[in-house]
Amino acid sequence: MNDKKNIKIYSVEGVKISSVSSGMYNNKRLDLSIIEINSTASVAGVFTKNKAKSPSVVISQENLKKNKPRFLIVNAGNANAGTGKDGYNDAVKYCQTLANKSNCSIDDILVFSTGVIGQRIKVKNIINSIPFLLNNLNENKWNEFSQSILTTDTENKIITKKFKIAGEFITITGVTKGSGMIMPNMATMLSFVATDMQIPKKILSKILQDITNISFNMITVDGDTSTNDSSILIATGKSKIFYNKLTSCDKNKFNNILQSVYIELAKKIIKDGEGATKFITINVDKVSTFKIAKEIAMAVANSPLVKTALFAEDPNWGRILSAIGNVNTNVKDLSSIELRLGKILIYKNNKLNSKYSEEAAKKYLKNKNIDINIKYNTGLFKATVWTSDLSHEYININADYRS
Amino acid sequence: MNDKKNIKIYSVEGVKISSVSSGMYNNKRLDLSIIEINSTASVAGVFTKNKAKSPSVVISQENLKKNKPRFLIVNAGNANAGTGKDGYNDAVKYCQTLANKSNCSIDDILVFSTGVIGQRIKVKNIINSIPFLLNNLNENKWNEFSQSILTTDTENKIITKKFKIAGEFITITGVTKGSGMIMPNMATMLSFVATDMQIPKKILSKILQDITNISFNMITVDGDTSTNDSSILIATGKSKIFYNKLTSCDKNKFNNILQSVYIELAKKIIKDGEGATKFITINVDKVSTFKIAKEIAMAVANSPLVKTALFAEDPNWGRILSAIGNVNTNVKDLSSIELRLGKILIYKNNKLNSKYSEEAAKKYLKNKNIDINIKYNTGLFKATVWTSDLSHEYININADYRS
Repeated sequence: MNDKKNIKIYSVEGVKISSVSSGMYNNKRLDLSIIEINSTASVAGVFTKNKAKSPSVVISQENLKKNKPRFLIVNAGNANAGTGKDGYNDAVKYCQTLANKSNCSIDDILVFSTGVIGQRIKVKNIINSIPFLLNNLNENKWNEFSQSILTTDTENKIITKKFKIAGEFITITGVTKGSGMIMPNMATMLSFVATDMQIPKKILSKILQDITNISFNMITVDGDTSTNDSSILIATGKSKIFYNKLTSCDKNKFNNILQSVYIELAKKIIKDGEGATKFITINVDKVSTFKIAKEIAMAVANSPLVKTALFAEDPNWGRILSAIGNVNTNVKDLSSIELRLGKILIYKNNKLNSKYSEEAAKKYLKNKNIDINIKYNTGLFKATVWTSDLSHEYININADYRS
Repeated sequence: MNDKKNIKIYSVEGVKISSVSSGMYNNKRLDLSIIEINSTASVAGVFTKNKAKSPSVVISQENLKKNKPRFLIVNAGNANAGTGKDGYNDAVKYCQTLANKSNCSIDDILVFSTGVIGQRIKVKNIINSIPFLLNNLNENKWNEFSQSILTTDTENKIITKKFKIAGEFITITGVTKGSGMIMPNMATMLSFVATDMQIPKKILSKILQDITNISFNMITVDGDTSTNDSSILIATGKSKIFYNKLTSCDKNKFNNILQSVYIELAKKIIKDGEGATKFITINVDKVSTFKIAKEIAMAVANSPLVKTALFAEDPNWGRILSAIGNVNTNVKDLSSIELRLGKILIYKNNKLNSKYSEEAAKKYLKNKNIDINIKYNTGLFKATVWTSDLSHEYININADYRS
């Protein structure tokens, strides 16, 4: 909603992009991109745990272990998933073309795909587009790149930041795609973030994993992901700043900004949820472990009954209690729980707050942004999950996806 | 769909019922029933594992442990859940009236409620109705009873059977309610089944648990239930047949018929699923354990993306593969899996069947009853789960539930 196409995107030195309409869709639109990464960059990745994973994911995981990647190739319009060995061979074929034409090894290429599952990918279209893509690499193509990876998304999702650390400017720019958010586990999420900070691969991987756990994983159930989910973090090292030599204060500053980039990207996916009319934040506080806090928040977030009530702006809070009640926690009943819609206290001390006004709750639910605040009062941990409501539009989009 | 109101229902000797419109709803409809059970009957129950359980469930569980129940009191229109101590006291109040007026102990009463969560129940309406209910007990009121427990259900759900075992006629009659089936875990399911067979309580409880696991639990995620789910099995013992003295062949015969009653009741709930246009059977075969087979079937059944595709009659089988891929099984990938829509083979040997015709699959999906058949080829166990599709109507019903 905020990214107008003419927004100023900071390029990241060392990252060159080009995008093209290769014909994956019936209509002409950007659908294929390559990214060239400088040879000294570090690259980290987090991938889907789904067992029906796309060959794109298999190849990217293999190559990320082996080598420093030099090229990423990303397409929308076809997930190349559920395609078995044929799909794997298809991906190898166009990667080999990219390797030949760019004088790199096929092992230096990471592959990403999103779109319909179960259909063979148009290998020829990709191969035919590679010369154009290689001839048009440019550092200022983040906007085109973000457009080229969209599927059911209704808008670009880019976050870009430039800030000073240890006296030097550092850039972070990232894009993401994804919008099928009723059960976020099913919709493909891709994300690509780059910074010019110098960060060794091992540390970069740790940073990406930690940040993923409080950003994309808070809109996506752990280990419960689509066939193609991939998240890539690139540190080109083109700035003068070496992460390992920063003071712990500056490290924190950098980590916090990177974290905010990921959280903002994750929120953009929710805001563009299929048919979403509400942006819902579920805070679960004072729980004995982060894991349980997250489970409770996810149970509320994934309840279709809660989601349809929020769509209808109906404060049917009993559905929230029921969703909470299903989670296997160390509490016997819900007597310690406090439930609020925004600041409106609904339930405490095992009963409805006597001052609760359904009219006030109804008024609150007319907002676009809704907070559901749950306190367990059994521990010290907190989790925040973001989700959307469930509207008619969701059915429309998903029933008609392939037609 | 099959139970016309004039269907012949076999009464069960020892079970007397009366129903009334007590004013739980704005419109006049049956909404409150009591059941009197003969003093020599055995009664078994299975209840929700939700921690936000209704006081009705708490009271029924307590009393079922202590005593042989003499009365069941069942209301629709209010779940008396999320009401804390107040709700508990409300239930005690009207149970005490029933105990006083019927000369039984309050411990002899089981309580059941279904309807909206979080609102105080109309105790006065219930209390005022009790004299009428006690004066109108009758063995031929199963139809009225089944009507009185409906909420969003669009039709009565009764199964009745009379058959010979060891030369004598045995009757089984049961009713159920429930229809919120997108995530079956959230909608209250009540079921009451009675037989005139003599069965000791301990054996009756074992039979009910076993049968629940392959009937109601195959439409409801284990331990993941609503605030009020309750399933009661009554054996009045009014026939001459004592279960323990039957040959194992006759025991099997009885168990199989009772099992078919429960499976048919469970299927009725799915067929009346909120906004359902399809009845979907998911068979998962040749898996290493029943538990994993059930998990896989449930993952497919609960995927909103699969459900919306089936609503749209779109054979988007990639979504089925993706749902399967999320389950934590002992297989590394999906190379051993066979996937069929009905008899149409789609996926085998890790690739699309070369003879698969999307046209044939589309034609198959025009049927009201759809089978998704999945073979794992890694073991000997099988599970069958029943579900419905996800349509616009579901959103309508659940968004407008309280208005």
